[in-house]
Amino acid sequence: MSDSPRSFHLSQKATRTNEQPISYLMAQAVGNPNLISLAAGLVDYDSLPVPESAELLGAMLRDPAMGKIALQYGTTHGLADLRRTLLAHLENLDGVSAAKLHATADDIIICTGSQQMLFVLTDVLIDPGDIVITEWPSYFVYTGLLESAGAVVRCVDMDEHGLIPAKLDELLAQIADEGHLHRVKMVYTCDYHQNPTGLTLSEDRRPKVLDIVRKWSADPTASGRIMILEDAAYRELTFEGAAPHSIRYYDKGGEHVALLQTFSKPFSPGFKTGYALLPRDLVEPVLAQKGNHDFGSNNLSQHLLLKAMQTGAYDKHVKVLRQVYASKRDAMLAALKENMTGVEGAHWTHPTGGLYVYLTLPEHVHTGRHSPLFQRCLKEGVIYVPGGYCYGPDATRTVPQNTMRLSFGVSTAEQIREGIARLARAVNSIDTIADPIQTESRLS
Amino acid sequence: MSDSPRSFHLSQKATRTNEQPISYLMAQAVGNPNLISLAAGLVDYDSLPVPESAELLGAMLRDPAMGKIALQYGTTHGLADLRRTLLAHLENLDGVSAAKLHATADDIIICTGSQQMLFVLTDVLIDPGDIVITEWPSYFVYTGLLESAGAVVRCVDMDEHGLIPAKLDELLAQIADEGHLHRVKMVYTCDYHQNPTGLTLSEDRRPKVLDIVRKWSADPTASGRIMILEDAAYRELTFEGAAPHSIRYYDKGGEHVALLQTFSKPFSPGFKTGYALLPRDLVEPVLAQKGNHDFGSNNLSQHLLLKAMQTGAYDKHVKVLRQVYASKRDAMLAALKENMTGVEGAHWTHPTGGLYVYLTLPEHVHTGRHSPLFQRCLKEGVIYVPGGYCYGPDATRTVPQNTMRLSFGVSTAEQIREGIARLARAVNSIDTIADPIQTESRLS
Repeated sequence: MSDSPRSFHLSQKATRTNEQPISYLMAQAVGNPNLISLAAGLVDYDSLPVPESAELLGAMLRDPAMGKIALQYGTTHGLADLRRTLLAHLENLDGVSAAKLHATADDIIICTGSQQMLFVLTDVLIDPGDIVITEWPSYFVYTGLLESAGAVVRCVDMDEHGLIPAKLDELLAQIADEGHLHRVKMVYTCDYHQNPTGLTLSEDRRPKVLDIVRKWSADPTASGRIMILEDAAYRELTFEGAAPHSIRYYDKGGEHVALLQTFSKPFSPGFKTGYALLPRDLVEPVLAQKGNHDFGSNNLSQHLLLKAMQTGAYDKHVKVLRQVYASKRDAMLAALKENMTGVEGAHWTHPTGGLYVYLTLPEHVHTGRHSPLFQRCLKEGVIYVPGGYCYGPDATRTVPQNTMRLSFGVSTAEQIREGIARLARAVNSIDTIADPIQTESRLS
Repeated sequence: MSDSPRSFHLSQKATRTNEQPISYLMAQAVGNPNLISLAAGLVDYDSLPVPESAELLGAMLRDPAMGKIALQYGTTHGLADLRRTLLAHLENLDGVSAAKLHATADDIIICTGSQQMLFVLTDVLIDPGDIVITEWPSYFVYTGLLESAGAVVRCVDMDEHGLIPAKLDELLAQIADEGHLHRVKMVYTCDYHQNPTGLTLSEDRRPKVLDIVRKWSADPTASGRIMILEDAAYRELTFEGAAPHSIRYYDKGGEHVALLQTFSKPFSPGFKTGYALLPRDLVEPVLAQKGNHDFGSNNLSQHLLLKAMQTGAYDKHVKVLRQVYASKRDAMLAALKENMTGVEGAHWTHPTGGLYVYLTLPEHVHTGRHSPLFQRCLKEGVIYVPGGYCYGPDATRTVPQNTMRLSFGVSTAEQIREGIARLARAVNSIDTIADPIQTESRLS
């Protein structure tokens, strides 16, 4: 393109959109087979439902009539039988009838992974300058999407029981004081085994979060109902104790909560299929937008997943995955205890499900991709996601530099043990060799 | 939701986004098994590659290692082996080496149907108020997307050889005169067997279109390179004569043309997979945007389609489809000749490929969904796509009311013959009973 006279004039949105930070991390793994990735958000390889999928797909495609339906276009809304089955599935998970939830199968939309619905809901609600409230920290792919959309991100602190309701109320009061309540459109929470912290919003906080959002939605200075985007991707991967009810369970009228789930974590990401139970008055605008995206997600995958649910293969598989990830979490927690207990000030979360542990190091040990620690880890042969990526661009806050997300998703128990040992060696070398001032100066 | 105090405050984009008109048409078919749809954009059922897909998927998933890779997450860019195979495929179609096209596999991005790439490219280039030039008529899903994006649509007339280059040049000169050339970002053309007309841009016009776009891109009042979005969805369904070179073939530096193709038409829509060969400097912005959409299209489908191409199953299937659609086109043209020749002023296109014939009726016979003709057709048991949907919202033009898109995609040859006979009965009844003034008054 050396002789190209001019560049394309990109849209404002494109200039706000950055490559996902994880892309850089993933590139590190290429050509380095010895590297242990505690960064990747991939799922466990060995437990992927290969034989189950082979059997179900085989049965489907040996039936010519059914095969033809699965290989034709589907609908924007998604396969009706699958939506009905998913409604029953959500009834089971929350132990309540759809009627009591004021929910029907038509309030469910099938999407291309739950990620697509994060995009579409944001497109449907957010103009540049609108405010979205997220947890602090939050899912970095979504905070990147919010930046791309031009949203103003404001954040709420968490403790070991998840988002702190009183802090949410305070924040909304503060935004109202600032005269910006009319710009608040959405509260985003990854409320089961959160990405990145692994923390879960406790049962007692769930109705409180809803009540606060209800209260501020009714404020005369609000511009309308505030939506709660409940990203429950990891909900079914609860392997210790019972998963709490969804926030949607408490929102009996279906007025505020968009509940988002996926087949990627509890079954297989290869089918790239998610689904959302939406407030009824958002179904039409979301469908209109999704029509422009793809006028319907992968139809073959939807038919396969319907069979997986109907035959019980899905439920059976989720149970297997819970055991798989429980034992990998145990391996990670044991390795952290063994290797990190000596690091003064280090502490980490103890998730009851999901794929992630969040590690906090002493304040002077920075974890960013240009930090001595990250570089040292590359040499040792282990990578993680720097926690700094996980904090939405809230101009009123300072991003902690000493945290990291550790995934027990894709690595084996043995790799996890070895990876944490490598990480500990790297941390100990930094902790002893670097004083804070040196560390800072080497960051540039 | 009766006790819901307030509504959601939707984004400006959401308020600009309408349900696709085709949704209404499709709904007509539900519960009316006797209705013959010449409206649906679906593909032929009987020729869907069910046994081929069963065999390829079976082989893939019986190999545990390969099965695990296919059921894991893929990448945002798309499967590298598939992109390499598609580059070779494009070389074959244009009879030229990738080197001469200044193209590599990294300039190709796999997408969730080509529709997703229409969305992403529009998002990457268009701010509200920017100008997109389309054919007159054009693909109605895309013109809907442009409305949603807030684009200003300006249109170029076509004749039987497709878009008229001199008219494109005139339009750009006019826009420059108006002082708006800096807002022109894109020329969209569906240049093979266009949806909705079935017309193909002739070989000799292709370099002319490119030269005109080059010339105006270099104008000092342009804000940058103008992109040509070449939607070649129907390219491989050329069943009469040889398909012309792509416009991208003439754009040897890859500076202007984004070439968009799909597996949906020449293989199966069930895999919802398309691909684009992009100008190199758009790859990164498109990937950043697609990362927010889905961080990668359906991985299982990509692996299956790679196998289909490697084994020759794809090429074999395209040949079958060409015969299938050729014979259905013949059925439609014969039926039109037989039934419509008597309708004075009626004429229709004679496509050499694709899925559509475009019918123009006498001026006073309106075809819109509230027209007497459309209602009469519903009674007769046949539907079509009113041509009025296919004209972008170009404020400087008047939309013709007397055209329709007829698809020979999903109906059998027998249904096509019967459908056209029903259509002719409806047209004849309108033609004789209604004078223009009555027709107009019954439209409201």
